Amino acid sequence: MGPGPSDVPERVLAAMARPTIGHLDPAFQGMMEELKALLRYAFQTENRLTFPVSGPGSVGMETCFVNLVEPGDKVIVCVNGVFGGRMLENVRRCGGVPVVVEDPWGRAVDPDKVEAAFKVHTDARVLAFVHAETSTGAQSDAAALAAIARRHGALTIMDCVTSLGGTPVLIDAWGIDAAYSGSQKCLSCTPGLSPVTFSERAIERVRARKTPVQSWFMDLNLVLGYWSGEGGRTYHHTAPINPLYGLHEALRILAEEGMENAWARHRTLHQALEAGLARLGLAFVVPEPERLPQLNAVFVPQGVNDAALRARLLDEFNLEIGAGLGAYAGKVWRIGLMGHACSARNVQYCLEALGKVLD
Amino acid sequence: MGPGPSDVPERVLAAMARPTIGHLDPAFQGMMEELKALLRYAFQTENRLTFPVSGPGSVGMETCFVNLVEPGDKVIVCVNGVFGGRMLENVRRCGGVPVVVEDPWGRAVDPDKVEAAFKVHTDARVLAFVHAETSTGAQSDAAALAAIARRHGALTIMDCVTSLGGTPVLIDAWGIDAAYSGSQKCLSCTPGLSPVTFSERAIERVRARKTPVQSWFMDLNLVLGYWSGEGGRTYHHTAPINPLYGLHEALRILAEEGMENAWARHRTLHQALEAGLARLGLAFVVPEPERLPQLNAVFVPQGVNDAALRARLLDEFNLEIGAGLGAYAGKVWRIGLMGHACSARNVQYCLEALGKVLD
Repeated sequence: MGPGPSDVPERVLAAMARPTIGHLDPAFQGMMEELKALLRYAFQTENRLTFPVSGPGSVGMETCFVNLVEPGDKVIVCVNGVFGGRMLENVRRCGGVPVVVEDPWGRAVDPDKVEAAFKVHTDARVLAFVHAETSTGAQSDAAALAAIARRHGALTIMDCVTSLGGTPVLIDAWGIDAAYSGSQKCLSCTPGLSPVTFSERAIERVRARKTPVQSWFMDLNLVLGYWSGEGGRTYHHTAPINPLYGLHEALRILAEEGMENAWARHRTLHQALEAGLARLGLAFVVPEPERLPQLNAVFVPQGVNDAALRARLLDEFNLEIGAGLGAYAGKVWRIGLMGHACSARNVQYCLEALGKVLD
Repeated sequence: MGPGPSDVPERVLAAMARPTIGHLDPAFQGMMEELKALLRYAFQTENRLTFPVSGPGSVGMETCFVNLVEPGDKVIVCVNGVFGGRMLENVRRCGGVPVVVEDPWGRAVDPDKVEAAFKVHTDARVLAFVHAETSTGAQSDAAALAAIARRHGALTIMDCVTSLGGTPVLIDAWGIDAAYSGSQKCLSCTPGLSPVTFSERAIERVRARKTPVQSWFMDLNLVLGYWSGEGGRTYHHTAPINPLYGLHEALRILAEEGMENAWARHRTLHQALEAGLARLGLAFVVPEPERLPQLNAVFVPQGVNDAALRARLLDEFNLEIGAGLGAYAGKVWRIGLMGHACSARNVQYCLEALGKVLD
């Protein structure tokens, strides 16, 4: 019950143990087509360029930035936690010119500040923000942020690593141009794959670049040849066969439950956990309206040894909860309710265990 | 029996289905230390910076280049097949100045040409070459090439994706500074992980850079904090837990057999396959002394439809062999004898199947 990787269900583990076949085998390519359709459902998008990057979420992030940011491009980057800071670092390494919109840790991104930034920086080409900040548990209003970017003629890059599958992510309805997620949060698959999706506007931007993409591996012009399936598959790299079996199965489980039902389950059980944590006297980092159901960050109570308590939970209760990151190191616990791990049994078990170790 | 992914043994598949635990869990970190020790054995090195990159071989390749090549650096790149060409592309995207040493497809890299290139380009900082060219099945003399580079004060980057585990790769004895491999060839694990190793000279070069590494994900300065284990683990990215279980098991199998025994098995069974292919009238692409045991490239006989024959092998015999890449598309078959798939049973089965479809 940390901030991910979350528990992986038996069906997904079993899928990963299926025999490895070739990445150019027709049977594997049939599975890839199903996987892409399942990902479109998860992202609630019709984007044809929707596929899993063969690497962790950080590679999905970098894939978005290296393709959509050219040297000299101005990028408005919203920073309200660790992962906004990582976006900023990506912009810099692509030679982009970042304009930082800062909000306090534990709060959502303020749309008014973003609007103000666009008014000053009328030449900004991209808006980048984190939908669900895994370091704090704050959720931002992606629809409002994407609308501002669109009004100012900029593309949007959205981090939805922790939100996808746990809380609504509506790529098309919101008008997001590029988004990346991770397999190991609310999708409950093994870490190491990063689902991404790109709008036609984003693809046009990549095609119109004046400079080559600095990464060979992440260059969408090359990756497209393998994942698009247009005019036959071109070999690009060897896809991670077994983890892809796992992601396929994880997405089937999500589709069987239905996205709306999965969102409702996360909301309901979050409320149960929230009530229990309050009874234990633990204070939430994020104000109620901005809280993510799947990531519950609470302050470590005064006088409690953070590391010793987490070690006891792991050793005596076989229970992992997450430590604080960055400015929150040693000060915050992050309790995940992600995907398969978001169950009434886990909420109860976690509250009981915390009750005992805090007693 | 294609050019990889190779068959994955049951033990490795079962390992990948073990429960997913946290990437910062002490039990997982204990496994990581074992994994690093097993990789040092596989690479025959004492290099402390030896670990699996969380991505396919192409990411391991790019990790070597983005860290060791700065804009303006002159790099001698040996091209004798597809993967040498990919190295060249990497040098360009890092802003390096490539000097190409070309050899015919199907032949080893000629050390005399490399020596000559260093004499002209005395300021070359890096030599890059492919030890085992997967597109042709040619093996180059890595010891000779690394010695030339060292004499001229340059670092070496070596691609050993297809060689590691199948034919000797002696990082320390040869004096290689950076090498990358893949999990899915002679190590017989699922694709998606890239073992890499860096000498102290290489680490010094990274530390002395004047410009930041262009990739956030691949920046060794950041990755080191997670994999080095010095002064506690720093979170960098979420490691691909289950595939790492698989690689750990695959390396244990290799250690149980012993490297020398694995090399001997590949050599012996290659000779058996070679004799059988000759009986079928199939001509090898690579002259005998430069042939890789684990990748057997033969010319498609006159009048035979390449794709139709490979489809028949797959449909009727459940047997995959590889197509030609690049200049060899449609002209060459690549028969892999890699790791677990390198067995007497497979050699016999492949020869019988080929005999029937060519009849």
